[in-house]
Amino acid sequence: MKRNFLLILFIALSFFTMKAQKATWIWYPGDYEIWLGNNMNNNRTERGAFFPPFWKMNSHYVLVEFSKKLDLPQSEEITIAVEGRYNVKLDGKLLFGAPQKLTIPAGKHNLNIKVHNQATVPAIYVSGKTISSDESWKVTFEDKEWIDESGKASDTSATTYMDAACWNFMDSTHTPSQFKLNTEPMSAVAATPQKHGVLVDFGKETFGYICIQQLKGKGTVSVYYGESKEEALSTEHCETLDRFEVNNAEAKDYTVQGSKAFRYVYIVSDAGLSFTKISMFYEFLPETYRGSFRCNDEEINRIWEVAAYTMHLTTREFFIDGIKRDRWVWSGDAIQSYLMNYYLFFDSHTVGRTINLLRGKDPVTSHTNTIMDYTFYWFMSVYDYYLYTGDRHFIQQLYPRMNSMMEYVLERTNKEGMVEGQTGDWVFVDWADGYLDKHGELSFEQILFCKSLETMALCADLVKNDSDKEKYNKLATSLKLKLEPAFWNKEKQAFVHNRINGKQSESVTRYANMFGVLFGYLDKAKSETVKKSVLENDSILKISTPYMRFYELESLCALGEQSMVTKEMKAYWGGMLKLGATSFWEKYNPEDQGSKHYAMYGRPFGKSLCHAWGASPIYLLGKYYLGVKPVKPGYSEFSVRPSLGGLKWMEGTVPTPKGNIHIYMNSSFIKVKADQGEGYLIFKSKSNPKASTGKIEQMGKNEYRLLIQGNGQEVAISYRQ
Amino acid sequence: MKRNFLLILFIALSFFTMKAQKATWIWYPGDYEIWLGNNMNNNRTERGAFFPPFWKMNSHYVLVEFSKKLDLPQSEEITIAVEGRYNVKLDGKLLFGAPQKLTIPAGKHNLNIKVHNQATVPAIYVSGKTISSDESWKVTFEDKEWIDESGKASDTSATTYMDAACWNFMDSTHTPSQFKLNTEPMSAVAATPQKHGVLVDFGKETFGYICIQQLKGKGTVSVYYGESKEEALSTEHCETLDRFEVNNAEAKDYTVQGSKAFRYVYIVSDAGLSFTKISMFYEFLPETYRGSFRCNDEEINRIWEVAAYTMHLTTREFFIDGIKRDRWVWSGDAIQSYLMNYYLFFDSHTVGRTINLLRGKDPVTSHTNTIMDYTFYWFMSVYDYYLYTGDRHFIQQLYPRMNSMMEYVLERTNKEGMVEGQTGDWVFVDWADGYLDKHGELSFEQILFCKSLETMALCADLVKNDSDKEKYNKLATSLKLKLEPAFWNKEKQAFVHNRINGKQSESVTRYANMFGVLFGYLDKAKSETVKKSVLENDSILKISTPYMRFYELESLCALGEQSMVTKEMKAYWGGMLKLGATSFWEKYNPEDQGSKHYAMYGRPFGKSLCHAWGASPIYLLGKYYLGVKPVKPGYSEFSVRPSLGGLKWMEGTVPTPKGNIHIYMNSSFIKVKADQGEGYLIFKSKSNPKASTGKIEQMGKNEYRLLIQGNGQEVAISYRQ
Repeated sequence: MKRNFLLILFIALSFFTMKAQKATWIWYPGDYEIWLGNNMNNNRTERGAFFPPFWKMNSHYVLVEFSKKLDLPQSEEITIAVEGRYNVKLDGKLLFGAPQKLTIPAGKHNLNIKVHNQATVPAIYVSGKTISSDESWKVTFEDKEWIDESGKASDTSATTYMDAACWNFMDSTHTPSQFKLNTEPMSAVAATPQKHGVLVDFGKETFGYICIQQLKGKGTVSVYYGESKEEALSTEHCETLDRFEVNNAEAKDYTVQGSKAFRYVYIVSDAGLSFTKISMFYEFLPETYRGSFRCNDEEINRIWEVAAYTMHLTTREFFIDGIKRDRWVWSGDAIQSYLMNYYLFFDSHTVGRTINLLRGKDPVTSHTNTIMDYTFYWFMSVYDYYLYTGDRHFIQQLYPRMNSMMEYVLERTNKEGMVEGQTGDWVFVDWADGYLDKHGELSFEQILFCKSLETMALCADLVKNDSDKEKYNKLATSLKLKLEPAFWNKEKQAFVHNRINGKQSESVTRYANMFGVLFGYLDKAKSETVKKSVLENDSILKISTPYMRFYELESLCALGEQSMVTKEMKAYWGGMLKLGATSFWEKYNPEDQGSKHYAMYGRPFGKSLCHAWGASPIYLLGKYYLGVKPVKPGYSEFSVRPSLGGLKWMEGTVPTPKGNIHIYMNSSFIKVKADQGEGYLIFKSKSNPKASTGKIEQMGKNEYRLLIQGNGQEVAISYRQ
Repeated sequence: MKRNFLLILFIALSFFTMKAQKATWIWYPGDYEIWLGNNMNNNRTERGAFFPPFWKMNSHYVLVEFSKKLDLPQSEEITIAVEGRYNVKLDGKLLFGAPQKLTIPAGKHNLNIKVHNQATVPAIYVSGKTISSDESWKVTFEDKEWIDESGKASDTSATTYMDAACWNFMDSTHTPSQFKLNTEPMSAVAATPQKHGVLVDFGKETFGYICIQQLKGKGTVSVYYGESKEEALSTEHCETLDRFEVNNAEAKDYTVQGSKAFRYVYIVSDAGLSFTKISMFYEFLPETYRGSFRCNDEEINRIWEVAAYTMHLTTREFFIDGIKRDRWVWSGDAIQSYLMNYYLFFDSHTVGRTINLLRGKDPVTSHTNTIMDYTFYWFMSVYDYYLYTGDRHFIQQLYPRMNSMMEYVLERTNKEGMVEGQTGDWVFVDWADGYLDKHGELSFEQILFCKSLETMALCADLVKNDSDKEKYNKLATSLKLKLEPAFWNKEKQAFVHNRINGKQSESVTRYANMFGVLFGYLDKAKSETVKKSVLENDSILKISTPYMRFYELESLCALGEQSMVTKEMKAYWGGMLKLGATSFWEKYNPEDQGSKHYAMYGRPFGKSLCHAWGASPIYLLGKYYLGVKPVKPGYSEFSVRPSLGGLKWMEGTVPTPKGNIHIYMNSSFIKVKADQGEGYLIFKSKSNPKASTGKIEQMGKNEYRLLIQGNGQEVAISYRQ
């Protein structure tokens, strides 16, 4: 009797759970990203002119059908909200008009809602007692529901249905097309009169809408934005500016349309105008700083903080490159943002949005952002995403478009099966202070290509496509076997930069060698050799972007050279801080002087002073100092290999899908606390280490491991550095 | 001195001509068609519910760059109008803001305008003394204009530029997105009170917006539309209806939103409402009736007139199927509209628009309208278009998308290289009053496929793509050789309907046999045999749609059986007229009775009573009675083979790109007048014929020909029937 009662209670609770399920706005997967991304990529202006991307912009599917199979214990009223013109079919019968409410009888039913919307994304929000629009709904862009002469409906089994996609629009009145980033008012820290106007300083790099308070009179106002004081005052050369006419009999606050990046603004207004002060509305994507890092070295702490702020400024509708100029989504930049993000916000949705936007829709007509290397980073980023988040569903949704992207690449390979820049391909590699040959087969590109083929094989396996898995494994293996014969130079003990018409060049650059180490394409011996012959060899062209420093320092970390990396970090990022940076830059050459630091692209202020790829210490400190990374998807297994890298102590948190991993380490103690999964703490100790719980295993001379359970309990280990 | 003066005058006049060149709104080719087509296809409603297509709707490119190379003798001011957000670059330099006026200095310049528009098609209108936006401008959807670190622009030679497209938007304020069909007020011919309302008769099938004059009071108005009286009065089953609330203190005219097709409307309004009368705004695409046909038989004349009206009603933003129900663009219907159009309006632009819309954009995810046969008609229609108009430029613009469409088809062929319906393919053939097997290899589909491959080879030749030409010729030849072995049945002396797993079926239908004759795939002897064994064989399933009667009667005409066709035409189209048709129907089975004629798709009024494919007499009378057709593209050469088909006399005009061909014929005289090209009049005469000008050549027994010059001079021939 009691058991029956409990069973009924359980059923009732389950039913209650069904009731409590929240409806959300849903759409065709990838489409909202394309629409929102187009809006965002179109925010770029260059000195008052609209400046959209030079690559193809896609469009969402303008006609989409949503469907859901229902089985109702009792009849239920639903409300329907739609962005677009729509119809509703219940069990194949079209209902009159565009119903906003509908009662569905008990029993099994098919509910279909078909929406057309050219201007914004077709989206629906359906809510009832047990029915709610969510990712369990199906969507298609061609339902193939024709009828024959007798009125018999077609067999639509060939229709390609996808699971609907959503984000966080949980309110029927908060439609997806209304999306806006958050804003909050911020004050300036100083305002200094200049010859023709006033220079306003907001104290640090920021982003948003300038507000001119109590603006009165008639005339023209010009707003010159500067990431540096010099830029704001350079009315002829500042990268962004706004200009507008005012005719206010009464004083009122005026907020400039169009958000901008700046620390300084120089306001020049006609004589007939007056205002009280200049403030701003700071615009941002709300994020929780789940990752953290603190250590005894305040410069490193400051580097981490400024890197985190740089990340936040560039984490917006999507992960963008820099906030001043491009404000675009670039694949090579984005993959680094994703990796940093896994150690800071663990905001998976923004990663997914950005990956979707970068891929766009078929047919593929150029490389991602037109850049060959950026196509490869895109592939690599997909598997990274899976490894960190464990979101297999995402891979399933994306796989067909991964495949068509790779088909585009394979169609452009040469008879060696290697990629070479063809007309229209941008072979980027890096912004370098020296000549980089982009001709022929670049070793760097083949290595990224090979990794991309491996990624395809891994993802084919995930979606259970055995023939693709075999095909891509074969292609990857074949290419991998060609790398050393094609590019390894015995005398130089390094991969050379490129090969033209089958002839190895004499030039060695860091790129292919770094990635050879990182991807394990070079064996241990060769990796160690490359450290000397390339990475620590000052005669090899230096890297002057944080972008490639990311991989350079990462490969040094992978080789256990954290102490060297600490010095490099302090010199390079510390160098920017010493120049007054409040966010990290697109490029930094310590040898430049004064305002030369701000120049790029042949323009005196062309350089971005807040660039996502500037924030890599976030990633390096999380992955190679705290030493935390996923071993199996979604941190179901992790590893912790902490390394002080010359620091006295450090402490920090790495976010995981269902919690955090927290580390403390000094020269004699390590403390680890994990909330999910399990994984080994791997560390070195000159004496026998001791653990508060668990059994430490010895792995080799001075090397130990201890299995950490993700149970939220801290484990303390005493060891000798 | 005088000659110099004349030369200067000539130059001045040329310059004046340059000045006089009219600017027009331009866009990316095919994009306006997609946008306008989506709007049009979305006009379908079914009993008050929005009813969009079940196939993929494409979207225009949302970001497009327009460019023009200029060489100005003197500086010139231009005005710029744009649909969308835009920027302007002169010689690679981005101008401030979004300039609407711009002065371009003398000399050589590059002018670029880049436009983003999600909701409507990116389009520009540029006008100056000599500069005007037109088809000579280039457009691209990805300009690939990246710059390197030093500010050097990329080599954009890989960018795919297309010639811009335009229509007839010659006024900068008349933007393409504002396009509306014309309307004019029309009165009803009768209004008859009914039990609950009033039945209004407009005297004939028509199309437009119902207007309720001097509507006053509060309540609901329902408008039930009918192509027949029975439909309008059937409030439960009429196909279209409108319902709206009124609350008018003062009487005012109310025009119902959303155009509809009807002859009758039944207006039911609440007691509290009053109005004076019901009228309408007739909506139409302005067309000139360039083709004409008159003869001694008034029933044939009436058939031609009603067919012409049917054509006009279905010639709208595009050629649509029927005006009541689908209002969609269907490829199989459209190819017939095109052919009729060449003998009525010669409106090439509407043909081009419709072909573009039907093709849409890559990737191809289904057959055209999801129907296998409709894909093949699409290919065939492209070469027809070229033959009638001579517009090679159109083929060049379209060829890449012809190729990708054919690739889709080829990927779906079986190991025999034949097409079979796969899941999701609609194998249509025809609406038949009997069982049509759609399984396996249908002979009909292979014949259309073969013709499509031949079309591809012809078009590959036109765009000078030799490898494609060879490929498609090979495929066509190979398939053609398989047709008789696969489908010809010696006993039945006919192509059988289909073959399943290599086994010929026993069933013979008319379809493949008709097309075998029409395309010349059957030799002369077999064609004659088929006439008896199939076309004139009453035991073979009869055709009850004007759609397939089009080809049936055409193949009889091609076999010289005009007299039989005259009888058929009078029986079939005359039969509809006798039932009161004021436009021709989607389907007509003389054996049906009363309002059974209006039923289809399991619905009592499902049938369209104004269907484009009902208008085929226009084509038959023009091509096979007046006997005019192009022999070389654009009527540079034509042929005239008039045939009275049992009529006493006939007279008519066939439009050509640069004029008309006019024919008069009775039993003893033929008169021909042509405005362009040249071509042979071919005719039979039992006595020696005489011509007013030119030299008649004898071709065979009783067969003669005379070369007609397209000089606008009438040539009269006396002959004996």
